[in-house]
Amino acid sequence: MNFTIDREILLENLNVIARGLPAKSPMPILTGIKLDVTDSDLYMTSSNTDISVETFVSDSSLQVLKPGKTVVPGRFFIDIIRKINSKKVSLTLVDERILLIKADRGEYKLHIMDPLDYPNIDFVTLENPLVLPAERIKTIIRQTCFATATSEKKPILTGVHLKLEGNKLTAVATDSFRLSQTILDVGEYSPFAITIPNKSLDELLKALDNYNENVTLYFSVNKLLVKFRNVLFQTRLLDGNYPDTSRLIPASYPIIIKFNKDELLDAVERVSLLSPRDKTSDRELAYSIIKLTVAKDHTVEISTTNASVGDANEELIPTDTQVAGPITIGFSSRYLIEALRSFESTEIALNCSEGIRPFVITGEKDHNLTQLILPVRMD
Amino acid sequence: MNFTIDREILLENLNVIARGLPAKSPMPILTGIKLDVTDSDLYMTSSNTDISVETFVSDSSLQVLKPGKTVVPGRFFIDIIRKINSKKVSLTLVDERILLIKADRGEYKLHIMDPLDYPNIDFVTLENPLVLPAERIKTIIRQTCFATATSEKKPILTGVHLKLEGNKLTAVATDSFRLSQTILDVGEYSPFAITIPNKSLDELLKALDNYNENVTLYFSVNKLLVKFRNVLFQTRLLDGNYPDTSRLIPASYPIIIKFNKDELLDAVERVSLLSPRDKTSDRELAYSIIKLTVAKDHTVEISTTNASVGDANEELIPTDTQVAGPITIGFSSRYLIEALRSFESTEIALNCSEGIRPFVITGEKDHNLTQLILPVRMD
Repeated sequence: MNFTIDREILLENLNVIARGLPAKSPMPILTGIKLDVTDSDLYMTSSNTDISVETFVSDSSLQVLKPGKTVVPGRFFIDIIRKINSKKVSLTLVDERILLIKADRGEYKLHIMDPLDYPNIDFVTLENPLVLPAERIKTIIRQTCFATATSEKKPILTGVHLKLEGNKLTAVATDSFRLSQTILDVGEYSPFAITIPNKSLDELLKALDNYNENVTLYFSVNKLLVKFRNVLFQTRLLDGNYPDTSRLIPASYPIIIKFNKDELLDAVERVSLLSPRDKTSDRELAYSIIKLTVAKDHTVEISTTNASVGDANEELIPTDTQVAGPITIGFSSRYLIEALRSFESTEIALNCSEGIRPFVITGEKDHNLTQLILPVRMD
Repeated sequence: MNFTIDREILLENLNVIARGLPAKSPMPILTGIKLDVTDSDLYMTSSNTDISVETFVSDSSLQVLKPGKTVVPGRFFIDIIRKINSKKVSLTLVDERILLIKADRGEYKLHIMDPLDYPNIDFVTLENPLVLPAERIKTIIRQTCFATATSEKKPILTGVHLKLEGNKLTAVATDSFRLSQTILDVGEYSPFAITIPNKSLDELLKALDNYNENVTLYFSVNKLLVKFRNVLFQTRLLDGNYPDTSRLIPASYPIIIKFNKDELLDAVERVSLLSPRDKTSDRELAYSIIKLTVAKDHTVEISTTNASVGDANEELIPTDTQVAGPITIGFSSRYLIEALRSFESTEIALNCSEGIRPFVITGEKDHNLTQLILPVRMD
C-alpha cells in the first residue's frame, strides 16, 4: 500500500468514519480503521457492535502507487490527520508491519493490525429503497430521539420506532413518561416497521452534519443502511415488538391554550431553576416538577415550590385560550423544555384534558409533530 | 429592604461576586451573598475560606425605597438574575424571612439567612499601595500560574511567589519540575515577598476579565487586597518560606536554538499525540515524554516512541543555532507546550547546557520572561 491524498479530503471522510469507531471494544481489531486502496479508489471502514460505516473515496487528489489493505489504530490515525496542517499526506505500508504517514517534514509510524482479522461487514442494499432529503431525516431525529428511554429496563424503548403504512412514515419515541411523534408523507412504498437504537441516530445526525442532499434508506429485517454522498452508514435494529402507541394520543381536547413558544420556554426555564430535584439515581425519574395553572380570567401561571430554597412564579398571557374552568397540571420541566425545543413554530398550543391525563403540544407550523407529556399528581 | 436596579448592572456585579462564592462550604452562611443596601448604595459580599469579594454599586438606576441587609442563597440568586431578561429587577425583603425578586411578570421568593450570622470581613487597605495596569497583572498570572504545583505535598509551591526588591517585581512559580519567572519594573516601592494561592489567581483573572484600567494592590502580612472599579477582591496568602529559586536559572548557555514559536508548538503538539502516557495518578508526574535532537548539520528533530502504537518524528529548521556538537534532550511535552503558550514572541529560543541540566525558553519580544524545564534522562 502506497498512496497520497489531500489531507482535507481524507479528514472529511475520517470524520464520518469516526462515527462507527468504538471508544473501547472487546474486539481490539475494531478499534482500528480498515483501509483498502485499489488502483483508483480508497475504501475506509469502521465498526462497533451497533454501527458500521464505510466511505469510498475516488477523489482526483488520490494517487495510488501501490494498492493494498491494512487496519490502523483508529483514534491515533484520526488525531494525527486532524493535527497535521500539510496540504497532502502520503501513506505507505512498510514491511506489512507499519503504516508510515508522511506530511511535510513530519513522519508518523503506526503499528498496524492484520486486515485478515477484520470482520467481514455486509452492507445490505435491497431493492426499493426510500429516498428522503437529509434535512427531513435530521428533523425526525431531532424531534423524537430525545424522548427515547435511556435505561435498558425496556430495551425496545431505547430506540425510535419508524413505521411506514399507507404512504405515511410515522416516527415515535417514548420513555413511558412522554412521547414524541412525527408523521411524514412519503408517497408509495412497501410497508415496514423497525426500531432504531437512539445512539445510532445520534451518530447518524453527526454524520449528516453539513450534508443537505438526498439520502437513500435500505430497510432489511435487522438492519438499516443509510447511503449518502460516498458513505454507507449501517446500524443494527432493535429486536422485539414496539408497543402500540396509537391510542395514547387523545383525539380531541376540551382545553387548548396557545402561547408564544419562546415566552413559554423562557418562563419554564426560569421557574425550573428553583424546582426541587428528585435525588433518585435513575435518570429517567430525575425530574423537576413545575405547575401550570389557568385562572378563571384565563391568565396562566407557571410556578414551583422548593421547601429548602423558595418559590418561583411566572405569569404568562396566552395568545389564545379555550378553557372551561380553572385547571392545574404538574409535570417535569425538563420534558416540557425538550418538547418545546423540538418545534420550529412561533406559536405552540397546549392541548389538555381534565384530571391527570396526558397533555399534548402542537405547533402552528409543525404539522404532524405531536409531543405528549404525562402529568404528575400535585398534592 | 426594598430597591430596584437595572438587571444588567446587578448581573455584572454578581459575576464578580461569584468568584468568591464557594461551591460547598462547611459554613452554610457562606453559600449566601450578603446584600446591604443603604439610602444610595448597594454593597454585595461573598467569601470562601481563601477569597472574599465585595462590590459597591452606586449606579443611577439604583432606587432605594427602604435600606436593609440580608443574605440570599448565592447560586440561586445569580442563576435567577442571569436567566431573567427584564430591564429592571426589584428586590424586597418580606417579613425578614423572604427576598422577593420581581422582574416583569416573574416573581421569585428566596428563603434568606440572617445577616447577623454572616462573618465580618475586613478588607485591609494599607498605605503605599502598588498601582499596576490590569493587563500587566493578567499577563503575570497567565505567564506563571500554570507552573504552580497542584499537589498539596509542598503547599507553598501551590502559589505564585511575588517579590519586590530594588524597583523590580519578580513573579515565580514552580512545581519542582519546571519554573516560570517574569520580572516587572515597577519603580520605587517598599520591598515585600508574598505567595498567592493559584486558585485565587485563577479567580482574580476571571474577575478582571473585560477590565483594562489600573488596579491597586494592598499587601499585608497574610492578605492581598486587589481594588479595581467598584470591586474589593481579597485573598489570603500562603504561609511559609518560598524556596530561593534565584540560582536555578543558569547565567549563560553554550547551546542556543531559535525557532518560530508556532512551528515548534505545532510540531510538539503533533508528536505528543503518540507519546506514551505515564499511568501514575499523581497529575504532576503524568507527563508524556518527547525527545529533541540537534544533528551535526543543525537540523532539529522532535520525536517520540510509543511501544504499543508507533513512532512520531518531526523535522524542524531552526531560525538560528549556536550549537557545538549533536545533542539530545528529553522532556515533558506538556511542560514545553504550556511554556511556549505563555510567550507573545514570534521567535523563541531554547537555551540549553550539556547533560541533564535545566533548559530555558526565552522570547525575543517577551523581555524578562523565563520558562525553565527540567529534562528527563533518556535511556
